Amino acid sequence: MTASILGVGTSFFGKQQASHPNELMWTAVNEALADADDPTIDAIYLGTVFGAPGVAQRGLHHLGLTGIPIITVENACASGTTAFHEAVQAVEHGRFGNVLAVGVEKMTDSFAGAIHPESTDPEGRSGLALPSLYAMSATRYQQVHGVSAEDLALVAVKNHGHAAGNERAQHRTPHTVEQVLDSRMIADPLTLLQCCPIADGAAAAVIGSAKGADRTVRVRSSVLQSGGLWDHRSDHVWGFGLVRDTANAAYEAAGVSPDDLDVIECHDAFTIGEIVTTEALGLATEGNGASLLRNGHTTVGGKQPVNPSGGLLSRGHPLGATGLAQIAEITWQLRGDAGQRQVDGARIGLVETMGGGVAGIDGNACVVAVLE
Amino acid sequence: MTASILGVGTSFFGKQQASHPNELMWTAVNEALADADDPTIDAIYLGTVFGAPGVAQRGLHHLGLTGIPIITVENACASGTTAFHEAVQAVEHGRFGNVLAVGVEKMTDSFAGAIHPESTDPEGRSGLALPSLYAMSATRYQQVHGVSAEDLALVAVKNHGHAAGNERAQHRTPHTVEQVLDSRMIADPLTLLQCCPIADGAAAAVIGSAKGADRTVRVRSSVLQSGGLWDHRSDHVWGFGLVRDTANAAYEAAGVSPDDLDVIECHDAFTIGEIVTTEALGLATEGNGASLLRNGHTTVGGKQPVNPSGGLLSRGHPLGATGLAQIAEITWQLRGDAGQRQVDGARIGLVETMGGGVAGIDGNACVVAVLE
Repeated sequence: MTASILGVGTSFFGKQQASHPNELMWTAVNEALADADDPTIDAIYLGTVFGAPGVAQRGLHHLGLTGIPIITVENACASGTTAFHEAVQAVEHGRFGNVLAVGVEKMTDSFAGAIHPESTDPEGRSGLALPSLYAMSATRYQQVHGVSAEDLALVAVKNHGHAAGNERAQHRTPHTVEQVLDSRMIADPLTLLQCCPIADGAAAAVIGSAKGADRTVRVRSSVLQSGGLWDHRSDHVWGFGLVRDTANAAYEAAGVSPDDLDVIECHDAFTIGEIVTTEALGLATEGNGASLLRNGHTTVGGKQPVNPSGGLLSRGHPLGATGLAQIAEITWQLRGDAGQRQVDGARIGLVETMGGGVAGIDGNACVVAVLE
Repeated sequence: MTASILGVGTSFFGKQQASHPNELMWTAVNEALADADDPTIDAIYLGTVFGAPGVAQRGLHHLGLTGIPIITVENACASGTTAFHEAVQAVEHGRFGNVLAVGVEKMTDSFAGAIHPESTDPEGRSGLALPSLYAMSATRYQQVHGVSAEDLALVAVKNHGHAAGNERAQHRTPHTVEQVLDSRMIADPLTLLQCCPIADGAAAAVIGSAKGADRTVRVRSSVLQSGGLWDHRSDHVWGFGLVRDTANAAYEAAGVSPDDLDVIECHDAFTIGEIVTTEALGLATEGNGASLLRNGHTTVGGKQPVNPSGGLLSRGHPLGATGLAQIAEITWQLRGDAGQRQVDGARIGLVETMGGGVAGIDGNACVVAVLE
């Protein structure tokens, strides 16, 4: 059975310290249910990394969502997309009719514990938090491919520019290359504006098999794979192999090629991430990801816009919510509902999320979904 | 497609502060894989409540289990059984061939944060940790049904007695009713020996569709439902309604009645829990659960032994691991491999796990599985 996205919703993304995680969820879920014309929900998958045990049941009970199977899933930064993937698989295999996928994270409650890798493991003991790991990838990438600091900064310039059109994004101020490079150094070569900010938020999608309505977005494929540990002997930096393999499986299952994509949301937790990921997705050949930025290929108005929402860099990155916010953005884009950041005539879109670091350095998990 | 349990394994359960969670997992997974004759694993579900993000990928990568879908699930104390349930559903719906279900918890690392309900929620603010909540249930149950302190203690006497035959259990010393009642008061009427101890451990099961071998245990049904919040106006105490409804659905799907069960592992986190649960499972009428203890009905040697492993009270309760340890116990029992705690001629067994408290007081989730 083909799975479709019947409705989506998100909260505002940003620091919302006074909000209970439930409030963020209620906003996202109520919007998604209304958007899907209030369907019967047969099961729920909720993605979160640092949510308290039972966050799903407690929060959703107040919306009358109880009695049915509710399962919390975790796959680091790909937790939201994992919830989406499990919902899609359940519908495709005829296990459930309509499934709600929800993602939530209150980073302002939990981030203190989140920034450092598990302290009992090697990278934890050596102080290699995620910005450091991405910085090491960036340095190696620059050395191998001759890419400049300005090239890296172009990712932030593009995505902050896109976020200006997204009223749900955390940071909507456009920046120049100079401003990006002049912002505080976090982990050389990554400056502050090249790192995703700490955000609270929730996002949701209703998956079902109903068709017919013009607004229904079809899931042409959804693939989830796990990755291995960091290996300095690898030919590639940070997650390239995992994203490439997962994307190729998703393209094959969907019967599309990278050229067919009209709009993409991908995992730009740090600027280097988007460059490597666009190569792994096949939008550019290896070592040429930065050219997509220089020639405007991945800017809204270009041939294959990447992260029209502003991406993790500008929308913010509440871990469990991110994947479903990406799904919501591509759904809006394919329906023509994306307002001033709309990609004209978008027909086929892709979502990619990489859950890595903290414990599984080269990527715990990657989910790639092709939507139409 | 009918799902079967091809192999099971567990670590020792108990305080193992010097052990990394990976070591516990490796012990359980290696035993389960060998027990299943080293099948190809197509996907993994891992249950944990307090495991670090990526605990699944990092730990299992070292066993060569990588590249495939790996998903961490959480449902409070029912996390391990949730992993089992998702694995069973995936096999039954033809999504995967063989699926590994793993549960792990290092309570000696995480228990400090675990004992208190989420501090931003009402029961957290009022100091109602789990022993207090169960104690309130016990007090009400005693008042309504006229059950004595000695009756409650009989659960601990039985299960500690069973654990004497389980070399993987944390507490193997038999106790008398007097010893149970004389142990330190934790939350009136629950004394220390009526509360499950803090334990570290892991357990695993390989689920597939292969049949034929005599040793293969068939999953006749597996049902997961979510529950509502604590409501003092309810006719019942702690989780009764959720367990009853989930069990009835599992009986119907399996085509069995409570009378058909030969051996049961159920959620005896506190003594009152087993009494209420045996009633909810239909082994006794409401208010008569204690009679099963008085007449030996649920003792090994009786008609329907409950918790021959020693249960959570004696085997220990590493949250994510518990459900799969229950699955392992019933698998051994049905194969006739349970040694001195073997239930003679056991043919149909049941596993019940309730994930409640911390955030969803009346049960976040309940899983009931009928095995043959």
